[in-house]
Amino acid sequence: MGLDIQSEIDVVKVASSKINQVDFENLAFGNVFTDHMLMCDFKDGKWERPTIKPYEPFLLDPSAKVFHYGQAIFEGMKAYKDDNDDIWLFRPDENLDRFNKSATRMAMPEVPEHIFIDGLKEILKIEKEWVKKGLGNTLYIRPFMIAIGTGVIAQPSTQYRFMIILSPAKSYYSGEVKVIIAEHYSRAANGGIGAAKAAGNYSAQFYPTKLANDQGFQQIIWTDDATHTTLEEAGTMNVFFRINDTLYTAPTSERILDGVTRKSLIDLAKREGINVAVQPVLVSEIVEAAKNGSLKEIFGAGTAAVVNPIVGFSYQDVYYELPKTENSIALELKEKLTNIQHKLAEDTFGWTVKV
Amino acid sequence: MGLDIQSEIDVVKVASSKINQVDFENLAFGNVFTDHMLMCDFKDGKWERPTIKPYEPFLLDPSAKVFHYGQAIFEGMKAYKDDNDDIWLFRPDENLDRFNKSATRMAMPEVPEHIFIDGLKEILKIEKEWVKKGLGNTLYIRPFMIAIGTGVIAQPSTQYRFMIILSPAKSYYSGEVKVIIAEHYSRAANGGIGAAKAAGNYSAQFYPTKLANDQGFQQIIWTDDATHTTLEEAGTMNVFFRINDTLYTAPTSERILDGVTRKSLIDLAKREGINVAVQPVLVSEIVEAAKNGSLKEIFGAGTAAVVNPIVGFSYQDVYYELPKTENSIALELKEKLTNIQHKLAEDTFGWTVKV
Repeated sequence: MGLDIQSEIDVVKVASSKINQVDFENLAFGNVFTDHMLMCDFKDGKWERPTIKPYEPFLLDPSAKVFHYGQAIFEGMKAYKDDNDDIWLFRPDENLDRFNKSATRMAMPEVPEHIFIDGLKEILKIEKEWVKKGLGNTLYIRPFMIAIGTGVIAQPSTQYRFMIILSPAKSYYSGEVKVIIAEHYSRAANGGIGAAKAAGNYSAQFYPTKLANDQGFQQIIWTDDATHTTLEEAGTMNVFFRINDTLYTAPTSERILDGVTRKSLIDLAKREGINVAVQPVLVSEIVEAAKNGSLKEIFGAGTAAVVNPIVGFSYQDVYYELPKTENSIALELKEKLTNIQHKLAEDTFGWTVKV
Repeated sequence: MGLDIQSEIDVVKVASSKINQVDFENLAFGNVFTDHMLMCDFKDGKWERPTIKPYEPFLLDPSAKVFHYGQAIFEGMKAYKDDNDDIWLFRPDENLDRFNKSATRMAMPEVPEHIFIDGLKEILKIEKEWVKKGLGNTLYIRPFMIAIGTGVIAQPSTQYRFMIILSPAKSYYSGEVKVIIAEHYSRAANGGIGAAKAAGNYSAQFYPTKLANDQGFQQIIWTDDATHTTLEEAGTMNVFFRINDTLYTAPTSERILDGVTRKSLIDLAKREGINVAVQPVLVSEIVEAAKNGSLKEIFGAGTAAVVNPIVGFSYQDVYYELPKTENSIALELKEKLTNIQHKLAEDTFGWTVKV
């Protein structure tokens, strides 16, 4: 979709880039931002002209709705640079689609493609030096929208701000990840906002995760809130279980995020001839499979980490260590997916989009 | 508790008050703010010195955690002025206690009493002209805390901002309130954050409430998310049902907010010799009571509205209109409670606290 008059973007560039102050070999995830940001406000029922301008703090009224009622959604995406210095996105249409589904669920306006996608491409062209070549180097993309209208009454805002900020990244997680299966705390309600990438879903996890950390576990595998018998997500990721040579993952629902990495891994696994069963996964099945040795792998899937292998889990105070696997499906799929993302392997799915 | 060195408050006053520009007879709830605000930041593991300064927008980084992960909590309170021009608070210790419970659940630091309570009293003394005499006139108080630390990684912030802003108010709701009993959407999960006054709980209600509005209902009565068979809250309020001459309300839980107005109404009703049954309330019981005529009243209870009578409810596409009641317990309790709050009746409970 081309830029029309309505979607033209004002650009104000920094006087001098801070890129030379950044140590690209030692990046903590999500802490360093590029020189510019995209900002676009929604007022009087319509989106204003987007602006790309120097990354900087902005003013908000103390009664801004985002502070009081949590109207805030986001997406996580990445940009990749190939050996020809071309920059690529991975399934950006999926992120736009999910962003707008989140917007609807949070009573926020949809962001049109010419702002979200064309705006993203425009800022990526300006920040192209921040996208580094090489497997593992990415530019993490954070589109988000917040309610900036004022007033301490619990009603949707009439004013919103859509922004895109960019953060150069290595990989998200490191070290061994042990998880605990949730027996009390929950991530989402039936009829709630679990399927939306809403800010409030994440802070709700911090306290239970801290309790898990205190017990020596890095993440929680979330279960359904009513019975705690079915497995739903791992931390902020979708989760896969390998029993013998079949991958199991829960179907998406109003409690489970429709992850782009999740759906890509399913398609990729199927192409590779791996059995994939998208069905409710019971805690009891996984415990039984761990006991009888048929549980080979568990891994999280998400944009930031891509694939995050889990080495063991705790349930009802019993720790189940997974066997060391010679032929890890998790690592195989991760390699194949990141090769597609970085344009090191043929993209037979048509997932990659050139900026 | 007196102010010690640590809790001293810096005060910067406005050059001239905007109070004369405010039409106190025609106030929309939560839209007008007083001249000053209290601000206090948490950094390096401790609370800094609070400041009372002119109400104004403040700067936040685009990657502030409140925008991305929704770490944000608040309280709702009111100040009242009696005929001697003294200013009173209503059970402020309960709000502080709940605020800090919310903080814990959202992995945020507790705010100490010398900042929350003493800071509130201090700003109220400065803004005393904004508290108007007369039943129905109040100064709505909004203490809140947001995560201001930066970084797009889903982990708790290390920096927070506690604020108090003040808004002169008449009553919150007006007109007839018809409600719809939730059959699909939900407010809270088991093991979730429903008992916390967390920002994300409110935006999660906006979309379902909009759908209810479109059908001609002002609010939703929320049910348990697993079975939708028990009644939990009404909109952003606790809810009471009067069957014959007994008041029923659900016990608080991790899904239901421990409302200060709710617990005060329970105590007040008991003092007045009214039967109060704090027990799970089934949808089926209320529908049956509506059918056989024993359901006399339904009302919401919360700080903003105090008591909000409901004229009828819809369930499974059937609308049940409540009878006109000559002797409304809702209105009787509202009058008695607001009289205590405004110091027009003796406070036998010791609930009111002089500023």
